[in-house]
Amino acid sequence: MNPVKVGLLGLGTVGGGTANVLARNQEEISRRAGRGICISHAAARETEFPDVDTTGMVISTDAFAVVDQPDIDIIVELIGGYDPARELVLRAIENGKHVVTANKALIAKHGNEIFAAAQEKGVIVAFEAAVAGGIPIIKALREGLSANRIEWAAGIINGTGNFILSEMRDKGRDFADVLAEAQQLGYAEADPTFDVEGIDAAHKLTIIASIAFGIPLQLEKVYTEGIGHITQEDVGLAEQLGYRIKHLGLTRRTDKGIELRVHPTLIPSRRLIANVDGVMNAVLVKGDAVGPTLYYGAGAGREPTASAVVADLVDVTRSLTTDPGNRVPHLAFQSDALSDIPVLPMEAVETACYLRMQVDDRPGVMADITRILGDQGISIEALLQREPVDGASDVSVIMLTHRVLEGQMNESIKRIEALDTVTGKVTRIRLETLDSD
Amino acid sequence: MNPVKVGLLGLGTVGGGTANVLARNQEEISRRAGRGICISHAAARETEFPDVDTTGMVISTDAFAVVDQPDIDIIVELIGGYDPARELVLRAIENGKHVVTANKALIAKHGNEIFAAAQEKGVIVAFEAAVAGGIPIIKALREGLSANRIEWAAGIINGTGNFILSEMRDKGRDFADVLAEAQQLGYAEADPTFDVEGIDAAHKLTIIASIAFGIPLQLEKVYTEGIGHITQEDVGLAEQLGYRIKHLGLTRRTDKGIELRVHPTLIPSRRLIANVDGVMNAVLVKGDAVGPTLYYGAGAGREPTASAVVADLVDVTRSLTTDPGNRVPHLAFQSDALSDIPVLPMEAVETACYLRMQVDDRPGVMADITRILGDQGISIEALLQREPVDGASDVSVIMLTHRVLEGQMNESIKRIEALDTVTGKVTRIRLETLDSD
Repeated sequence: MNPVKVGLLGLGTVGGGTANVLARNQEEISRRAGRGICISHAAARETEFPDVDTTGMVISTDAFAVVDQPDIDIIVELIGGYDPARELVLRAIENGKHVVTANKALIAKHGNEIFAAAQEKGVIVAFEAAVAGGIPIIKALREGLSANRIEWAAGIINGTGNFILSEMRDKGRDFADVLAEAQQLGYAEADPTFDVEGIDAAHKLTIIASIAFGIPLQLEKVYTEGIGHITQEDVGLAEQLGYRIKHLGLTRRTDKGIELRVHPTLIPSRRLIANVDGVMNAVLVKGDAVGPTLYYGAGAGREPTASAVVADLVDVTRSLTTDPGNRVPHLAFQSDALSDIPVLPMEAVETACYLRMQVDDRPGVMADITRILGDQGISIEALLQREPVDGASDVSVIMLTHRVLEGQMNESIKRIEALDTVTGKVTRIRLETLDSD
Repeated sequence: MNPVKVGLLGLGTVGGGTANVLARNQEEISRRAGRGICISHAAARETEFPDVDTTGMVISTDAFAVVDQPDIDIIVELIGGYDPARELVLRAIENGKHVVTANKALIAKHGNEIFAAAQEKGVIVAFEAAVAGGIPIIKALREGLSANRIEWAAGIINGTGNFILSEMRDKGRDFADVLAEAQQLGYAEADPTFDVEGIDAAHKLTIIASIAFGIPLQLEKVYTEGIGHITQEDVGLAEQLGYRIKHLGLTRRTDKGIELRVHPTLIPSRRLIANVDGVMNAVLVKGDAVGPTLYYGAGAGREPTASAVVADLVDVTRSLTTDPGNRVPHLAFQSDALSDIPVLPMEAVETACYLRMQVDDRPGVMADITRILGDQGISIEALLQREPVDGASDVSVIMLTHRVLEGQMNESIKRIEALDTVTGKVTRIRLETLDSD
């Protein structure tokens, strides 16, 4: 059979990796797919492509011309960002071409529009590479766990953030110091906001939640909190208490609605996911039949991401002749069977918490604090008081609370911070046991 | 669309679980699959099915009659064992029905014959549940990693064995003691040979290797060693040296051929897979593009296994109208593109080793031993000597060696055991770093 013809948009890190993997493993891939997959056209801003195998490609700077090439079956969008990626993908669909993309921002923000257009035209938009790089988590959730009512999913889905927290813990370094190194190593962008503020994780979590629960993509409803306020002290204290701090994206189905949140999280150290270190990613999924399952691997990088892009190409190649109604639906559930279960506002989410505050070292202070918590129905599971440093008049108090509504905890923190015996802000880090229940 | 009709063979643990998951999650499953999946007929030896939802099923004791039912689309074989499972599956294929099975022994031993028959008739034989229970590892290997040249895969793929080793380590208990408990808990069969001797793991490893490398199933070539000789002392010493002992199934592609082996293995404690405890399973896969990825979950049990069976049912339902040439090939690679790369005999496999022996506590003994190793080109990475117990005349010597050919290590062990200063057998446990190279 003739090879499938692919038009590649973008020959940067992931685009170059995709070209190389397709070229290097072409024999392996066609032994699997039953036919070859070749990039016939590519569009790129650059004109030189060191370390990229561009054999056989017609390369131009006009991405729209590639999308309009009549004999191309599949467009691979690896430009990133919203524009012109959105226009290119929509035009490819309009042209009746299938699309493979690694663009998490695009799918999280414009996925509903894009999938509706694809559904209308009977084409596939595949996006395995958009979440957790090379880990086949989209496939696991949409197909591997299709027997299950998914209860929750929690993931370490930003490698830069995990690298920073791992280094803070392993080497006792400070946030700013490790961030600078991550930027130097090329893990973090010059503007690290997307990574450390949790925006990148929010994109991925949006996608995970949609395919786990069959709900439309709702990026704007993700509660997003970064890791910039986590101190070396918090990391060490968490460890002492038997926990690790991870920047977690978490989505859970409750009776009242869907939780959708990205924030630093204390996880029991003995959990496998607490031991995922460095730039690696992992997603833990709980299904009602299968119980907990975990998927681990490289969440970014040239070839790991290319691995997911090419796997999608093989899948799309196999599905070219499948009637659209029998393909795996974009959001795992048939498009006319999506659920309108609401996403909960963060105030309605219940979590246990770690609290750290600076208080005056004198009688009565603890009584004030515990009374405020008690008034909100918050019970304390553990309490640590650190001896004052010589000459200092205040001490650190650390508490672990039982599960409590976010709204009540917000109110308690406000009242505690208003006490004149408490200095500065209360640090609050949510805690999840991630056990089977 | 009408529901897909399924004939279920076996209403025991997994069969009952499959019926229950299909019934409980029928709405979720049909929202995914686009149509319902219902068990119209079932065959079972029993006549009472406590805790199983048998609504709508015609139940008989004649499995062949179910296989011959004309209006059934898919046969689910959950009887286990070789016979009559093989005859039933072949007859279902002959009748033009698709098959879903959880039967690892059947696939590992008769898979080549079964897949050839299925290929001939243009039907699917799906077997996700045959390896690592609810973990979608078959899907990850066959589809999720299809871009990769797989380099190796290593798995904890027998829950009973992992439970025993975990308990020995965590609680300092003896093998026999934990085995007895595992039998009481129902983890281990009355005859635990399949589990503790590694036969069950060999079945699963055979399947993993075939779909990783595109080679025919070759159960008879798996080197299989059990965990019955692992002592509490070995478990403790491994821990001291920074390792955990796991019963690992490992397959690797080398220039000379494929390694295919199941044996107790020292793994660095910091590796994620070394921290997979209790009855849980995990498979670590190294692809050339994606790097290492790991898949973790329940490897056995009623509903986790049913999760994989039902996921296969959804997949087959979606593929009913796909032309056979565009389906995912049974062994991941097109049947006419399988590789004849040979499986290496164990003597030709290279591993590092842990050695423990009892030697006389007097000068010259160590020199004899190290000379024997040196003669075979074996270098020692670490050496521990345990002080003799009061009054005893012999001491334990523990060594970690660098990588060495199995054949040379066998020769060295034979010569060491022949020394009259060495008492009894030398314990040899292979060591794998499972790093990215």
